[in-house]
Amino acid sequence: MMLGIDLGGTKIAYAVVLPGTSTIVARHVTETRSHEGAPAVLQRMIADCRDVCAAAGITPAGLSGIGIGVPGVFDDTTGRTLFLPNLHGTWPNVPVAQTLSDSLGCAVWLINDARAFVLAEALHGAGRGADNIVGFTLGTGIGGGVVIGRDLYLGIDGTAGEFGHQTLALNGPRCGCGNIGCLEALASGPAIVARATQMLKEGNTPHLAQALANGEVFTPALVAQAANAGDGALVRLLDDVYAAIGAGVANVVTMFSPQVVVLGGSVSNLGAPLLTAVRQVVHERCRATPVDRIAIVPAVLGADAGMLGAAQWAFRRLQQWEVQ
Amino acid sequence: MMLGIDLGGTKIAYAVVLPGTSTIVARHVTETRSHEGAPAVLQRMIADCRDVCAAAGITPAGLSGIGIGVPGVFDDTTGRTLFLPNLHGTWPNVPVAQTLSDSLGCAVWLINDARAFVLAEALHGAGRGADNIVGFTLGTGIGGGVVIGRDLYLGIDGTAGEFGHQTLALNGPRCGCGNIGCLEALASGPAIVARATQMLKEGNTPHLAQALANGEVFTPALVAQAANAGDGALVRLLDDVYAAIGAGVANVVTMFSPQVVVLGGSVSNLGAPLLTAVRQVVHERCRATPVDRIAIVPAVLGADAGMLGAAQWAFRRLQQWEVQ
Repeated sequence: MMLGIDLGGTKIAYAVVLPGTSTIVARHVTETRSHEGAPAVLQRMIADCRDVCAAAGITPAGLSGIGIGVPGVFDDTTGRTLFLPNLHGTWPNVPVAQTLSDSLGCAVWLINDARAFVLAEALHGAGRGADNIVGFTLGTGIGGGVVIGRDLYLGIDGTAGEFGHQTLALNGPRCGCGNIGCLEALASGPAIVARATQMLKEGNTPHLAQALANGEVFTPALVAQAANAGDGALVRLLDDVYAAIGAGVANVVTMFSPQVVVLGGSVSNLGAPLLTAVRQVVHERCRATPVDRIAIVPAVLGADAGMLGAAQWAFRRLQQWEVQ
Repeated sequence: MMLGIDLGGTKIAYAVVLPGTSTIVARHVTETRSHEGAPAVLQRMIADCRDVCAAAGITPAGLSGIGIGVPGVFDDTTGRTLFLPNLHGTWPNVPVAQTLSDSLGCAVWLINDARAFVLAEALHGAGRGADNIVGFTLGTGIGGGVVIGRDLYLGIDGTAGEFGHQTLALNGPRCGCGNIGCLEALASGPAIVARATQMLKEGNTPHLAQALANGEVFTPALVAQAANAGDGALVRLLDDVYAAIGAGVANVVTMFSPQVVVLGGSVSNLGAPLLTAVRQVVHERCRATPVDRIAIVPAVLGADAGMLGAAQWAFRRLQQWEVQ
């Protein structure tokens, strides 16, 4: 069996998975509490791995391998994280794979969390049956991934598929990555909330103001609620966001001409209006691509995708390793 | 031996090539004269194929196959062209592969000309030795192509790699394809000439005006000459063009994380200033990609790339066909 781990800024999710399937034998979720520092988090992860294996009736040494989806950049050769922006301290040069591998006695591989999401959706979710699939994770950041010929296409150091950092506005707003005019700077969850905050200050969003006064959490979903309730400024804001995401998807379609585009992440929970707008923009912009033969669909595996993709990745790496 | 053909709007180039090599045994070039209509052009092509084969000491039936690079969209299943915008009549539903195959007695495959260029540069040119290569043809149109694992990645109907039709300016100028804000609308040869014409009318380009009065041809290279001679408005125009091409390359780098980016086509003859600017923009914009490990280089095969890539494509299709 494989163990898939989804290491997030808030939570860490574990699943013991039957190799090559989406069958979860045992699962576990804990808080990340990254303010305690990477060594403490890693020690808790080791204990949690033992617990979830015990729940599956095995020991960690009985695992075929562990895959860990990490929210950022890592060195695939050493298994060290390089930059995880949503974890306290950003985890530069943390020997994640080695630490877990030494304590648990089995092989550990890292994978970017968005790539893990796309791999899982490609094999067991919305992309099932297709050969070439691209996916977007639309959330706090905007990530992505590419599956070609039913296998992840990774590029140098696993960095292919950074769809959130494509330039859509040559002189657009500054992105967290340092570039200007990125899709992420135009359409991430924080970008939506920041623009809505500006409109709130200008007094143009009475329904949003009321909802916040009632103690509701300020999220893209709340912005959409207030837009639906009649805040016209927020309707225009969301139209801009949908147009940007649509153009970002259109660029990926133009470059990859995939069979399936999977949209996931919290912003994708805006649902039907987002999906309808994205499909329309892709039809308008992609004139050189047979878009009628490309499915643009929501993710279906929900929060399990990260763990399943990480487990699947470990399984694939194990197979490559056995061949060598 | 294979026969590679580069079918262009102005010229048709033929090369008899040793399979799997860049060795050209015999070559031939003619004018396209597409105003004579597709049937007449195809009959001339059949005669030219016989001639170039004779020069190589073989008959067409002795060829292993013919590859034809076409400047536009085709149906790979039927071998019919669908839309070749630079040929008179645009060649809708023209049975190019069947017509040549029936007359010459050997297999014929079509390939998009930009994809043929990238395949040739990947195997025998600027991308030699790398696994993952992307390429741009910067000219009258802006095309592109993708080689992954030393093989063309084609997407649906061979449409992957249309890098010229990525959106870089959400509300930018109208492109010939129907979209707005495409790279091609910002930086193709005709886009450069059109913007320079506007400046010429405004009287801001004395050196360009003088050169045109001297009977020189109005090309991007002439615009660059006039900029170098002191036409400040044209310097700014070219800075905009370089910035757009740089952002377009940066987006492709961000998505594919390739080892090599090859720049070809007539606009790429602007040379060192273009290359320097593109490299700088890629370094500025691609913050999530290890750009120091990505080579951004000029094409090296010149006008031969199209024929060599088409021949190589026919060789690959033949191999696939023999395996089945």
